[in-house]
Amino acid sequence: MMASSSWGGPACPVPAGAGDRIQLGHGSGGRMTLALLKEHFFRAFGGQKLELMADGAVLPWQGQELVISTDSFVVTPVEFPGGNIGDLAVNGTVNDIAMMGAEPRHLSAAFILEEGLPLAVLDRVVASMAKAAERAGVTIVAGDTKVVEKGKADGLFVTTTGVGVRWGKLSPAPHQARPGDVVLVSGPLGRHGMAVMAARGNLGMWIDVESDTAPLWSLVEALGRRVGDSVHVLRDPTRGGLAGVLNEVAAASRVGVRLEEGALPVPEAVRAACEVLGLDPLYVACEGVLVAFVTPDAASEALEVLRTHPLGREAARVGEVVEGPPGMVTLRTGFGGTRVVDLLPGSLLPRIC
Amino acid sequence: MMASSSWGGPACPVPAGAGDRIQLGHGSGGRMTLALLKEHFFRAFGGQKLELMADGAVLPWQGQELVISTDSFVVTPVEFPGGNIGDLAVNGTVNDIAMMGAEPRHLSAAFILEEGLPLAVLDRVVASMAKAAERAGVTIVAGDTKVVEKGKADGLFVTTTGVGVRWGKLSPAPHQARPGDVVLVSGPLGRHGMAVMAARGNLGMWIDVESDTAPLWSLVEALGRRVGDSVHVLRDPTRGGLAGVLNEVAAASRVGVRLEEGALPVPEAVRAACEVLGLDPLYVACEGVLVAFVTPDAASEALEVLRTHPLGREAARVGEVVEGPPGMVTLRTGFGGTRVVDLLPGSLLPRIC
Repeated sequence: MMASSSWGGPACPVPAGAGDRIQLGHGSGGRMTLALLKEHFFRAFGGQKLELMADGAVLPWQGQELVISTDSFVVTPVEFPGGNIGDLAVNGTVNDIAMMGAEPRHLSAAFILEEGLPLAVLDRVVASMAKAAERAGVTIVAGDTKVVEKGKADGLFVTTTGVGVRWGKLSPAPHQARPGDVVLVSGPLGRHGMAVMAARGNLGMWIDVESDTAPLWSLVEALGRRVGDSVHVLRDPTRGGLAGVLNEVAAASRVGVRLEEGALPVPEAVRAACEVLGLDPLYVACEGVLVAFVTPDAASEALEVLRTHPLGREAARVGEVVEGPPGMVTLRTGFGGTRVVDLLPGSLLPRIC
Repeated sequence: MMASSSWGGPACPVPAGAGDRIQLGHGSGGRMTLALLKEHFFRAFGGQKLELMADGAVLPWQGQELVISTDSFVVTPVEFPGGNIGDLAVNGTVNDIAMMGAEPRHLSAAFILEEGLPLAVLDRVVASMAKAAERAGVTIVAGDTKVVEKGKADGLFVTTTGVGVRWGKLSPAPHQARPGDVVLVSGPLGRHGMAVMAARGNLGMWIDVESDTAPLWSLVEALGRRVGDSVHVLRDPTRGGLAGVLNEVAAASRVGVRLEEGALPVPEAVRAACEVLGLDPLYVACEGVLVAFVTPDAASEALEVLRTHPLGREAARVGEVVEGPPGMVTLRTGFGGTRVVDLLPGSLLPRIC
């Protein structure tokens, strides 16, 4: 059984009178994030490219298409089972580039360090970044470090920006989902989020779960080679989880998405931990999983491509695109009922990435 | 008269036994920053491009050269006379690109917001960024926002990453200074640093100084058109000031640099504030000034180009490159003496950008 995930769900309460200040919920990836972006960023910047709500931007360049994407990482704790803020910052950004159908090439990395951070922690983080960059096939070409006084940051924050090049075989975008498209996920849901929660000691129990942080370009490349034309949308369900990504795509494409609860690949350890915390695995972040919307004729081949890749062995067909209601994601439960899988208003798990 | 600026100078003391942790001095742009980069970043990343110590990287691309550069901004307070963290974050990164002889084209911007930040402050910062981007001729194409709990950041931090394209008329680099080169600065020294100090209320006096934050590409372009081949090095003296930049160039080029104290364009308000604080203006950050190393035959023309540009009206010839001692910067004082202008060991003015 999953906990409720609609408006009355487990999101953080909003303090009264806090409407004119930043709240934790603004960082959730849910409705409050969306409102913050629309009202306080997009209007001022006025950039059409930002309005597309993709993870990055596509820039025409000398007959090719460059892709640029940026992300700040503020995960706490900075080290968790299966990874740390360093490999997370590399994989997070190369995956955003891969989800735009581009091959990641170069990264920049900017560090904000808190006075008192043990250099041994910094060394482990930097070593993880170097290893993750090598695995992902990117070079870290530019960097910056700033230091702030003790108590003015939280250990370290890392911002990575990536540059990639569109490959030509894939041009996925969030607004391209069409009724009939099949929704595939490449692996188990919720591992990253639950690994971070476990590292915080919030579970009151020991669970055997590691973050899935991994670079996804090779998986995207494999899809592109075999069924490139049939891939309408690619996303990685990080902050906000699968529910967040599907809601974004449903809204951008003006379609509905129908999930089958029984088809969702939720590891037993994640399911158990979610029950303890009263969370829904649909909202818990992955960092090494992709969601693909593909045409129905190509769905079986796409699933096979995913399953024959080491990162996609547990790939599954989890739902389909329907006409409507536009923007709505629904879940058919094991009991034959249907419930709405809404965007959360505020924070489910702050600082998960 | 200037205060001492050598090892015994006004840098923050290093707490005993703190050698295995990050200290404020690691963010100074001085010796400790250099040591941190060498021992904890370059070795792990092993990138030749990072080793060049330029502000960004040059990437060959389809017969052109792309330039990428990144910087985190943690200035406190976030608003100060003449600017705020928003325009500073735009100008800082477009200037790093311009200093590599490249025209800035696109920016990404990643925000780390502290819970409780007034949205009115955020709005002013974002509006300044939009205006600065327009003035600099760049588009902000990708962004990210993260929120951390109250007390885990300091208002807001902004990381900008820029992409530019080399123009062909200029290819400056820190290792290209040659004996005989003339050192030019495009404007008055120390305005940004002193404006931030004034905003902190640290001066105990009122001074009439605003940050000089401005985008420098048009100035670089003008230089490039008239004397491009003669420009060996371009840098902007931000964190660490003119002294920091000249020491870096002297070390990278294995030459000496000799400054003339009487030629340094230090505004009276900056000089007075520095005396109150016991600081040397040579170490105080500018954010709208460039330093150019040009061949002696082109020096007069370069100076004229700078002086006819609105941002370069107070440009001055401040010194020259000498054979050695390699890596050493010296200053001929008004009294006919000579002193060494060393890198500071630690922090002079933390969180100035």
